[in-house]
Amino acid sequence: MRHFSVELEELNRKLLEMGALVESSIHRAVCSLIEENRPLAEEVLRDESTINHMEMEIDGMATRLLALRQPVARDLRLLTAALKINTDLERIGDLAEHIAKRALSLMHDPLVKTLPDIPRMDSLVRSMLHKCLDAFVQGDAELARSVLVSDDEVNSLRDSTYRELLEAMRRDPVLVPVAIKLIFIARNLERIGDHATNIAEDVVFLVKGIDVRHHSKLSES
Amino acid sequence: MRHFSVELEELNRKLLEMGALVESSIHRAVCSLIEENRPLAEEVLRDESTINHMEMEIDGMATRLLALRQPVARDLRLLTAALKINTDLERIGDLAEHIAKRALSLMHDPLVKTLPDIPRMDSLVRSMLHKCLDAFVQGDAELARSVLVSDDEVNSLRDSTYRELLEAMRRDPVLVPVAIKLIFIARNLERIGDHATNIAEDVVFLVKGIDVRHHSKLSES
Repeated sequence: MRHFSVELEELNRKLLEMGALVESSIHRAVCSLIEENRPLAEEVLRDESTINHMEMEIDGMATRLLALRQPVARDLRLLTAALKINTDLERIGDLAEHIAKRALSLMHDPLVKTLPDIPRMDSLVRSMLHKCLDAFVQGDAELARSVLVSDDEVNSLRDSTYRELLEAMRRDPVLVPVAIKLIFIARNLERIGDHATNIAEDVVFLVKGIDVRHHSKLSES
Repeated sequence: MRHFSVELEELNRKLLEMGALVESSIHRAVCSLIEENRPLAEEVLRDESTINHMEMEIDGMATRLLALRQPVARDLRLLTAALKINTDLERIGDLAEHIAKRALSLMHDPLVKTLPDIPRMDSLVRSMLHKCLDAFVQGDAELARSVLVSDDEVNSLRDSTYRELLEAMRRDPVLVPVAIKLIFIARNLERIGDHATNIAEDVVFLVKGIDVRHHSKLSES
């Protein structure tokens, strides 16, 4: 039987691999929209089934380790955190797929170019995702907390995109179907930010043993 | 030390209690919209923090049982399923809160009355949620599978609502901000259906040991 720490490392490595693919899917989905690149969007759709397989594999690994190793304390929290992060990554993969599908239906639409905040949201949510996965692997609660702050910035970019699109629709109702697709893309990016925030909260809990999940929400409302 | 089966029953009972509150929140949120009932929406907003507390409590119970009882086989799958179902229920609670907030901002808007599919979606997703939680407690994979079928119906109700609202905005651009809020409400209800589907898939896995998660998606695309 191999060392437990080696198996945990392999689980971490798999999660990071999945995280990297998901991060790349977000970026390729948004690039396909901005650069009117159909093959790139099709690549994202193909990779979604790889992400789904990774999710099932990681779920199997974590559950097997829970059963065979019967971990306690930090190792137990690590495995339950891995199960949750896995689910969040898979849902982010779904959201990237939604963006890619909408990008395919929006090829060559001039309204896209008027929205600089969409590429900004793309790079911001990818940086959040990258940070929270780094924080997970390094057990760095401070890094995880820095992700929680970025969530507000994502929301304000979403709001500004939303306002511009509302204005465009009011001026010209013909734009309505296209503008709504773009509103959904901004909303998908915002939800990716929400999932990164969930992961960051799980990491803080893992490292500090403090549940920060519903505190950020209380301060928001 | 109490019997493990008694503790598992208590966990089930807590999950069902949370499920019942979440189900009621969805219904009250939609009723507040349809009946222009402000206090009802405010009740939903208040209950959201109760749902958040329940989530943390159930998470703590399941993790403690994983640590102390070191379960294997079906009990282990039961506890990891409880952790996932708990997360889905909490997110459904968030979605009910979003609907209630939008209902508050839409009080006395005549456009709402033109959308009979929104109350239909409400009763359909609540029935899905109810069935998948019953299926969890009774270990009934057939009942869980019946939920997977309803998801298509939710999507088609969402599509018809969406089409009507697009048409309304084209006719009268002044309606754009209201119509977009209503599109988001339909989308929130659809996402509640997605979470119920996730729970149903977890129940099938729990009972049968078969992973059906990504098969329904393959047949959709």
